[in-house]
Amino acid sequence: MNGHTTNTNATHIARRLTSIGFTVKRIVTVMDEIGEIVQAIRESLERSPALLVTSGGLGPTYDDKTAEALAVALGRRLVESEEALRQIQSKYGALELTPVRRKMATLPEGAIPIPNNSGVAPGIYIQVGGTDLLATPGVPREMESVLENFLLSFLRNKPALFYEERSFKVRGIMESVLAPHVTSLVKKYNLYIKTHPRGRELNEPYLEVQIAGSSKDKGELSARLASCEAELRDICVGMGGIVE
Amino acid sequence: MNGHTTNTNATHIARRLTSIGFTVKRIVTVMDEIGEIVQAIRESLERSPALLVTSGGLGPTYDDKTAEALAVALGRRLVESEEALRQIQSKYGALELTPVRRKMATLPEGAIPIPNNSGVAPGIYIQVGGTDLLATPGVPREMESVLENFLLSFLRNKPALFYEERSFKVRGIMESVLAPHVTSLVKKYNLYIKTHPRGRELNEPYLEVQIAGSSKDKGELSARLASCEAELRDICVGMGGIVE
Repeated sequence: MNGHTTNTNATHIARRLTSIGFTVKRIVTVMDEIGEIVQAIRESLERSPALLVTSGGLGPTYDDKTAEALAVALGRRLVESEEALRQIQSKYGALELTPVRRKMATLPEGAIPIPNNSGVAPGIYIQVGGTDLLATPGVPREMESVLENFLLSFLRNKPALFYEERSFKVRGIMESVLAPHVTSLVKKYNLYIKTHPRGRELNEPYLEVQIAGSSKDKGELSARLASCEAELRDICVGMGGIVE
Repeated sequence: MNGHTTNTNATHIARRLTSIGFTVKRIVTVMDEIGEIVQAIRESLERSPALLVTSGGLGPTYDDKTAEALAVALGRRLVESEEALRQIQSKYGALELTPVRRKMATLPEGAIPIPNNSGVAPGIYIQVGGTDLLATPGVPREMESVLENFLLSFLRNKPALFYEERSFKVRGIMESVLAPHVTSLVKKYNLYIKTHPRGRELNEPYLEVQIAGSSKDKGELSARLASCEAELRDICVGMGGIVE
């Protein structure tokens, strides 16, 4: 929140979930304060998502408050999980489980600890109505480990959609010139097309064109993306653009 | 939202606002959909922040919907701003102002266009009660230009606080071992201390320790940070850590 760290965890989680057919609707970042975290969790649950993933706040320090915030948000007691304690003890080996280390095994009642292959703190999986709620650690490789273990063994409702994206670059066409064509192709193909300006609109226009979509039929989706990309490339070339 | 782009704009805005004494409370990322953007703006305004900054959605394409979303969220009409039109025309020079280009001058009634020195679309500044609402473009250098122009000439309520942060690195001490000391120093100095694990807790512990705080008195703040850092470094060295 002070700009010290860029939220690359959100990027990873969004990309991974998108790749298996989820549509990410919202990403929220809040301070390490119980009230702020509780409010954000509650607001998210009110939207009844299939999946809610949090990252950070599962470690041993005073500002690691996610388990407590989850308990408050869900109205559940905090209890020491035997399974989590077992996972944590196995990491520390002969070292004593001090209070701050035991803290990582204190989870909302009914939570399932998710193994962390890259660190100590287990992830926390809670079924809240139809929502799968997963809390992952904030250290990137630990977040990735917990997310993968969750997707592999615990995720209840895998989307029945395939996702695919393509992109190409075009030099020499202003975004404002391409815009009307993009609008009509979005309608024609029912795809998401986004032009990312990588140069300067006025004196060195350079665009990255991203085309993406979802479908229940993988073959149909690929064919639709290919047609759309071919038509858009032709338009760019026809306007004098250099397609890369 | 699909993980194609990491939100470095949020990092920049948070760091810049923190540096002048603001406390960033929440960062929200939503899809390019009117309903989602409107809901996020309304939820933010309900918290009555001194400042709300958005980024993205001001350009010429079909998915640039921020001006429209602001109008809906605030219950204001969209009107063509003469000043914005003048700024945009000056960029395109002799080129015709096509509909998609004029679109960038269509702002919620009462909005003030903020000059963009690095691109075409002006920023949008709206006073909503006590909240300064600033919409910036999504292209990073354009966002930065609009943000700086806004902070220099338009910001109403500059925080009366100074912010300072320091950090050091320590090798050989587990986060779970340092945690109780961090907790007591946070209380003693009323500062924010965060340990960022950069190594591995168990076999190669390596922490970046960040200490930060705000105060109305710059000298007092610096002295307090220095004392806290010195005490924490001593603790680390006393426990056999290698401080870098």
